[in-house]
Order: sequence, then structure tokens, then C-alpha cells
Amino acid sequence: MAFARVAIIGLGLIGSSIARAIKERLPQVTVTGHDASAEVRGIAGELGLCDTIAGDPVATVADADLVILAVPVGRMADAAVAIGPGLKPAAIISDVGSSKAGVADALAKALPDHVVIPAHPVAGTENSGPAAGFSTLFEGRWCIVTPAAGAPEDAVTALIGFWQALGAKVDIMGAAHHDMVLAVTSHLPHLIAYTIVGTASELEEVTESEVIKYSAGGFRDFTRIAASDPVMWRDVFLANKDAVLATLQRFNEDLTVLQQAIRRGDADKLEDWFTRTRAIRRSIIEQGQDDAAPDFGRKH
Amino acid sequence: MAFARVAIIGLGLIGSSIARAIKERLPQVTVTGHDASAEVRGIAGELGLCDTIAGDPVATVADADLVILAVPVGRMADAAVAIGPGLKPAAIISDVGSSKAGVADALAKALPDHVVIPAHPVAGTENSGPAAGFSTLFEGRWCIVTPAAGAPEDAVTALIGFWQALGAKVDIMGAAHHDMVLAVTSHLPHLIAYTIVGTASELEEVTESEVIKYSAGGFRDFTRIAASDPVMWRDVFLANKDAVLATLQRFNEDLTVLQQAIRRGDADKLEDWFTRTRAIRRSIIEQGQDDAAPDFGRKH
Ligand SMILES: NC(=O)c1ccc[n+]([C@@H]2O[C@H](COP(=O)([O-])OP(=O)(O)OC[C@H]3O[C@@H](n4cnc5c(N)ncnc54)[C@H](OP(=O)(O)O)[C@@H]3O)[C@@H](O)[C@H]2O)c1
Ligand SMILES: NC(=O)c1ccc[n+]([C@@H]2O[C@H](COP(=O)([O-])OP(=O)(O)OC[C@H]3O[C@@H](n4cnc5c(N)ncnc54)[C@H](OP(=O)(O)O)[C@@H]3O)[C@@H](O)[C@H]2O)c1
Repeated sequence: MAFARVAIIGLGLIGSSIARAIKERLPQVTVTGHDASAEVRGIAGELGLCDTIAGDPVATVADADLVILAVPVGRMADAAVAIGPGLKPAAIISDVGSSKAGVADALAKALPDHVVIPAHPVAGTENSGPAAGFSTLFEGRWCIVTPAAGAPEDAVTALIGFWQALGAKVDIMGAAHHDMVLAVTSHLPHLIAYTIVGTASELEEVTESEVIKYSAGGFRDFTRIAASDPVMWRDVFLANKDAVLATLQRFNEDLTVLQQAIRRGDADKLEDWFTRTRAIRRSIIEQGQDDAAPDFGRKH
Repeated sequence: MAFARVAIIGLGLIGSSIARAIKERLPQVTVTGHDASAEVRGIAGELGLCDTIAGDPVATVADADLVILAVPVGRMADAAVAIGPGLKPAAIISDVGSSKAGVADALAKALPDHVVIPAHPVAGTENSGPAAGFSTLFEGRWCIVTPAAGAPEDAVTALIGFWQALGAKVDIMGAAHHDMVLAVTSHLPHLIAYTIVGTASELEEVTESEVIKYSAGGFRDFTRIAASDPVMWRDVFLANKDAVLATLQRFNEDLTVLQQAIRRGDADKLEDWFTRTRAIRRSIIEQGQDDAAPDFGRKH
């Protein structure tokens, strides 16, 4: 089973990147698109992202074999309800939401008569909107597919093939495990970055202009992910509350250990810890998950 | 006053970058170098970083007008004591340490008869050692000079001119204020990054190989600075203990606020916070302190 017609609901960073990647790598596939925002539809139209862009979600999905919901996690249920009346009985529904257990439940409830196979491409940038997308976003990145128990095998296989065709590597896991893994590798890092950027901009002793000037000492790294879309991230933290709070507790414990080591002047403990954390960077680079160049290869 | 002969003690990332920048931008200046490590001296020699490289610190500084100590913060006192006997009476001593109040005290104590003007170029990468340096490291970056009250003006002016000649922009401030500013813009970010990388690699629920695979979701950003030199950072946290602990407390308070907002499902609070933190990234890019390209301009 390969998909001849794909509909994308939500034409922001991820939706528009999927559309671009299809145009480039699967030119025989017809792509229809819809976004709640007329402005986004206009931009997507000008960029020629889809074969058809419609203001009506029902019309958008009418002929689709695969429908991908690429809206914020908190809008998935609405988006699913809105396309329901237009879906072909055999259409497969998927999504790209950054958290999975809650989304999977919401989609199954909204579309009880359809095959729903949730997924999450672990790829993105700090920018959002249709102009921010690009066709190579998923290349070499992992896409995690989280089929419910009993999901039809041919549909799962077809979705995996679709993501592989866009350049992604695919893994399968349960939604709950996905949410724990991503809490660590993505949600907690964002939460921490949002926190520290907030802290730095509200100190009395240090002005915001000083923070900006001297940000090359490390702080600027955190400002990148703290510039990510507020609505998207609000939704992620609300949807993946339990796993985020659980990993945050572990982080807090570790932070207390280091805080104590600093207070006590425990040089060995600090050096040991900092030596251990070095290794993981090497593995990430070796596995092609980051740029090997110093400083992310920044032009400065 | 311009410096005709510069001696660099410690030929790692920063020391070797200074040597390279002098060769490129101040070819008339003679550079001598010393490092405690024979291996480092060997590499520095092969790279042709200095006009002379010596195993003896006293010989290294014998003719120098300016001596720059580029060793870990905890080694500054030893390094200063070691060069003492070789210094010309008129030689100016400076350093590049990432914390300043403690270093300033240590240097003043070790070299009571010399003009000491501490400084800190806010520039670096996660790599260390002589091979990691490059001549453009300081271009467009700030160098903070922290002269003690009563420091001779011509010496301060000369040091400022030196850093400007290497491409840096220069600011002057007190050592204590420097330490507070850098606690926020550099030391706390490193501490947080070291913490989260430690947390992520020791969870039972999520394997280290999963953390590595899915690190593109945000985590990989933190692994870069958590790969920085353990000894250098151990020393920074010990030397700048008070300011680091003070900013850490503010961070902890803010983290508790966000934790509570997540637990309570306070969507507005989260969205507000995440919207505020966006602005600072724009200012950093506008002021040339980071790459404007998405994702730091990473090649993926
Ligand atoms: N950004 C990342 O790095 C990343 C990575 C992996 C996965 N994801 C996930 O991908 C999804 C989309 O994220 P994104 O970064 O592409 O966001 P985005 O750039 O903000 O795009 C989302 C688009 O969906 C539209 N939309 C909202 N509700 C809708 C609805 N009910 N029907 C149709 N369109 C609707 C939005 O319009 P309005 O602006 O008018 O609401 C917006 O144009 C999210 O679930 C996110 O968690 C994001
Ligand atoms: N890395 C950054 O991003 C950055 C940025 C701004 C400022 N700084 C500051 O710059 C200084 C140097 O950092 P770096 O990154 O260049 O470190 P590095 O690459 O590790 O180099 C430091 C060198 O100093 C040598 N050394 C240690 N003690 C010495 C002594 N008593 N006499 C002579 N040489 C000695 C070390 O040799 P051994 O390895 O054998 O000990 C090493 O080769 C530190 O104070 C740091 O806080 C660093």
C-alpha cells in the first residue's frame, strides 16, 4: 500500500516541510492542504506547497488516502472532528504531535471508525509557520510511530514507508514510552531553556542589555529553543504533564547534588560529573544527530 | 604604549587563539609561549603558534611587555608565582580567566610589585587544547577588562587597544559585577547543561541510546556545552561560588513557578512566559551575538 493522495491539516513548520518533502521526493503523490489561518493558506498558496489548498477541511481530505494532522497538540481533537465527515472509509489518519498518549486518545475518540496511527518526527527548528519549513527537515532524523495495539499491520507499514521516503529513519514504540523519552530529550530541555531565559531577563543585578551582550558565554544557546512557538510548547507541557514533571523531579535532584558540591567546594565531585557528561556528545555526533563542527558550526 | 613583546602562559584554546590572532593581526609583535604540558608545547611548536616556546616560565616572560595567563582559574596563582622572577619591572600582567574577583586577588597577591589588569574575553567553544584555537575567535566578541581601582590608566588603555586589535569589543567593569553577569550568561547555563546531561544519562526508564537517538528534539543543544573542559569548569564554579549559587537560587524559584503552572494546567501562565522569552533571542541576533540562521545554521 502506497499513498497516492495525502492531505495535510496545518501548514506551519512541520506541515509545510512535509508538503515540500513530498513534492521533492514523491512527485507522483497529490498533496492537498488546509490551515485554519487564511493568512497561512495564502502564504502556502504563494509558495506552491500543495496541489490544492482549501479553506474547508472536509473538502481537503475528501480524496485522501493519508491525512496528517500537523496542528498544535491541543488542537488535534478539533482538527480531527472537523475532517471526520470528509474522510474516505479507508483513509489512514496520522499526526506529527510532539506528545503522543493524549493525542492518540483524542484522535481515537474523534474518529472511532478510522484507522489512526500516531507519529512524531523528531525534527524541527525554533521557527514556525509555512515559510520556515524546508524539504530536508526530516533527512536522517528519527520519526517515531506509536501504533495502538491491534493497529492494522499494512497501514503501519505504509506509514513507515511514507516517512522513510521523506528521508527519515523510523522507530516504533508505545505512546507512553514515547512520552517519557521525549520528556527527557526534548520537553525538559525546552522547559529549562524557557526558565533560564526568563530568569536572566528579570534579575535586578544584571541588566537585560548585559545579558544580551555577553550571551556568547553559553546563554545564547538556550535562547534558541526558548524562542520556539509559545502555543505549541504550552500544549506540549499540558499534554505530557506527568512525564515532564517526573523527569523534572530527577533534574531537580541532580541540580541539588551539584549545588551542594559547589557550596561545599567538592572539586572531585564536580570534575567527575563534568567528565562523565562529555562522552554523550561524542556519541551524538558519531550517530549523525549533530554537527561535528565546534560551536554547532556557527558562523560566529 | 603598544606591546612589542607578548608572552602567553597556557597554550590551550584561549592562549593558542590569542597567539594565532597576534600572528595574523599584529605581525610585528613577538610572541613567546609556555605551557605546563610538554605535549601541549610540542603541538604548539608544530603549529608554529609562537616565535619561541619554552619549558621555563621565567625565560618565557623575560622580555615581555605584556604577559597573559591563559590557564584554568584554579592555576592562576601558581602560574603567576612561577613567572614572578622573570618579569621586567614594567611588564603588565593580564589573564583570560572566566571568573575575575578571585583571580584578581590571587594575581595581586602573587605579584604585588607589578601592574595586574585582569580581563576575560567572552568567547570560546566546547573544545580545548592548542589545536582547538583559531585566530578569529575574538572577532566581534566582547572582552571584559576589570582593572582594580587605581590601576594605571595608560596600562588599561594599552590592554584595551590590544584586545581591540585582536578584533574584540571591550567593556570595563568591576570584578564583582563581572562575576555576577557571567554567572548568568555563562556559568549557570553550563551548570544547567551539565546537570541535564547527567540526568538524562542515568534514568532507568529511558536508555542512553534512546537519549542519543532522539536528541535532535532539543537535548543535543545542551550536550555541546556539557562537553566543555571539566577542569576549567570545576575551577570556575569553585571560584565564582557565591554569584553562581545566587543566580541558581533565582533559577530554582522560576523553575518552581513553571513546574506549578504545568501541574495546575495554567495554560495562560505558560504561554505568557514562553512569549516573553522569545524577544531576547531577536536582540541577541540583532546585536551580532549569534547566527541568524535557524538552528544555529547547523548543517543538520
Ligand atoms: N516545531 C517543531 O520543532 C516540531 C517538531 C516535531 C513536531 N512538532 C509538532 O508539529 C505540530 C505542528 O507544529 P509546527 O511547528 O508546524 O507549528 P506551526 O508552525 O505553528 O503550525 C501550526 C499551524 O496549524 C494551524 N492550526 C491550528 N489549529 C488548527 C486547526 N484546528 N485546523 C487547521 N489548522 C490549524 C495554525 O494556525 P494558527 O496559527 O492560525 O493557529 C498553524 O498555521 C505540533 O503538534 C507540534 O507539537 C513540532
Ligand atoms: N574555553 C572557553 O570557552 C573559555 C572562554 C573564555 C575564557 N576562558 C578561560 O581561559 C583560561 C584557559 O582556558 P582554555 O579553554 O584555553 O583551557 P585549555 O584549552 O585547557 O588550556 C589551558 C592550558 O593551560 C595549561 N596549564 C595549566 N596550568 C598551567 C600552569 N600553571 N602553567 C602553565 N600552563 C598551565 C594546561 O596544561 P595541562 O592540561 O597540562 O594542565 C593547558 O594546556 C581559563 O582560565 C578559562 O576559564 C575559557
